[in-house]
Amino acid sequence: MSTPEYLKGNKDAIRGFIDKYDVFLFDCDGVLWSGDHLFPGSVPTLEMLRKKNKRVVFVTNNSTKSREDYRKKLESMGIPATVEEVFGSSYSASIYISRILPQSHPEVKKRNKVFVVGEAGIETELASEGIPYLGGTDPAYRRDVTPEDYKLLAAGDPSVLDPDVGVVLVGLDFHFNYLKICYAYHYIKRGALFLATNTDSTLPSAGALFPGAGSVSAPLVKMLGGQEPMAFGKPNQAMMDAIEGKFQFDRSKACMIGDRTNTDIRFGLEGKLGGTLGVLTGVATKEDFLEGDVRPHYYVDELGDLLEGA
Amino acid sequence: MSTPEYLKGNKDAIRGFIDKYDVFLFDCDGVLWSGDHLFPGSVPTLEMLRKKNKRVVFVTNNSTKSREDYRKKLESMGIPATVEEVFGSSYSASIYISRILPQSHPEVKKRNKVFVVGEAGIETELASEGIPYLGGTDPAYRRDVTPEDYKLLAAGDPSVLDPDVGVVLVGLDFHFNYLKICYAYHYIKRGALFLATNTDSTLPSAGALFPGAGSVSAPLVKMLGGQEPMAFGKPNQAMMDAIEGKFQFDRSKACMIGDRTNTDIRFGLEGKLGGTLGVLTGVATKEDFLEGDVRPHYYVDELGDLLEGA
Repeated sequence: MSTPEYLKGNKDAIRGFIDKYDVFLFDCDGVLWSGDHLFPGSVPTLEMLRKKNKRVVFVTNNSTKSREDYRKKLESMGIPATVEEVFGSSYSASIYISRILPQSHPEVKKRNKVFVVGEAGIETELASEGIPYLGGTDPAYRRDVTPEDYKLLAAGDPSVLDPDVGVVLVGLDFHFNYLKICYAYHYIKRGALFLATNTDSTLPSAGALFPGAGSVSAPLVKMLGGQEPMAFGKPNQAMMDAIEGKFQFDRSKACMIGDRTNTDIRFGLEGKLGGTLGVLTGVATKEDFLEGDVRPHYYVDELGDLLEGA
Repeated sequence: MSTPEYLKGNKDAIRGFIDKYDVFLFDCDGVLWSGDHLFPGSVPTLEMLRKKNKRVVFVTNNSTKSREDYRKKLESMGIPATVEEVFGSSYSASIYISRILPQSHPEVKKRNKVFVVGEAGIETELASEGIPYLGGTDPAYRRDVTPEDYKLLAAGDPSVLDPDVGVVLVGLDFHFNYLKICYAYHYIKRGALFLATNTDSTLPSAGALFPGAGSVSAPLVKMLGGQEPMAFGKPNQAMMDAIEGKFQFDRSKACMIGDRTNTDIRFGLEGKLGGTLGVLTGVATKEDFLEGDVRPHYYVDELGDLLEGA
């Protein structure tokens, strides 16, 4: 494995790096901001890239926000963006369910409802593809489990387990609970496909880590004896294919920028992009970049270091 | 690996089996009952064994009930028992925390509080050993996570993260939520030991499976990159040592009876008991007993089959 090139403080190297690519795919949380804290270099760096006519795409595994939610978040932080420039894991999963599944899993076609463990972002993206769903933010599932639940779920009673559910889709859910895990498990045991928007174990916020979507699906994986969900966020290439399908770019002239080796950098490497750039403002440490199993082509301390090449 | 002997319908074999042992260790859920449904053969079989002067011990991984709760449950089902005959995983964990940890982990001695993810049974057993705790059934932790939580937890603010917490103990929690997982994770990241009453992936009830204690700790295991908790329920031998310490029995004259190969049967085999008996009224199937990696010495369809040897 080669050693990543440290760009900071080397103007020529940074200029060469920027010139090499037409498209920059950005991870957001941990790169542009952390939680609600925008990194000072983010806005000027994006402006600089746009001035150089680079295409920027915001690629996020955050399933709690729809693309439009994300565009608003970018905008509220002073980053102009269009909905088309945003790719989220909920969108990626919804595209798969509406367009691929009917061909790949014809048995699911007749059971076209999705049981959601997750927040509103998933619901919005499912609705945008015309997919019926239940669960999600419905307050009916935000309660304690009762002895009656056990009986009805065990019996597969259609008054609680909708026979039209063919997919369980799990994302980050700040309201996950015992009851929702029970429902998801019993739908899966009755033949529903087990999908996840993404499987990030943690969510960075306020400079620390909190449970991510992968931790929300972890109880189900445990109950299912280790069966992992089919996942749609980075590093899954379903998302790369969707991005490429939309923008028709040359992968050799695209660069993925991210803070996590196992999601962002792996996403770019497995997608055979021309470059990958690691930043140290998120999860990965310098040691991860230099000595880990998955290493970026380049790394900087923070995104704003690229401004030296302006 | 040898093939388990099927005892049902063979009076002599059953009599020989019973005569061989002085002590019968019983798993409860899946053997004596399932959820709230008592199997008809349970009470007469226990009576028959008591008449033959066998010692019976009820060994349960269920962490939601204290030993006294369990004795009451046994009693309410017509099974007389004393608190001493009941061994639960919460009790086993509490014994470890109060008696072993101060020697094995002197650094924890000064941080003597336990953060509990679990139900009242854990609290009762911790209290019986004089161990201070927080979390658990405290309604203050049964709420949504807020932006303020992220900030205070990330900062390790002592107003939310008690500096005296040296242990995180996770058991089955019907009220587990995002906030509790956040707390548990941040305590562990600040040096608290990660313990679990048990790691059963599922809980049998009403003839079906529901999330077990292992599914409640799964989000933490995922967040910690695969670090498993130190666990005290079956098949962990800490529990066998405690049972033996109490009753001073000859392991070669003891038999473990259970429905799960990976917990009950493994518990007996690794504890080098004279015998293990599998029953088919719980999780394991006949194929698990006959072809699995962990096989009992004997098996029957249900506990009541032993009555043929009365």
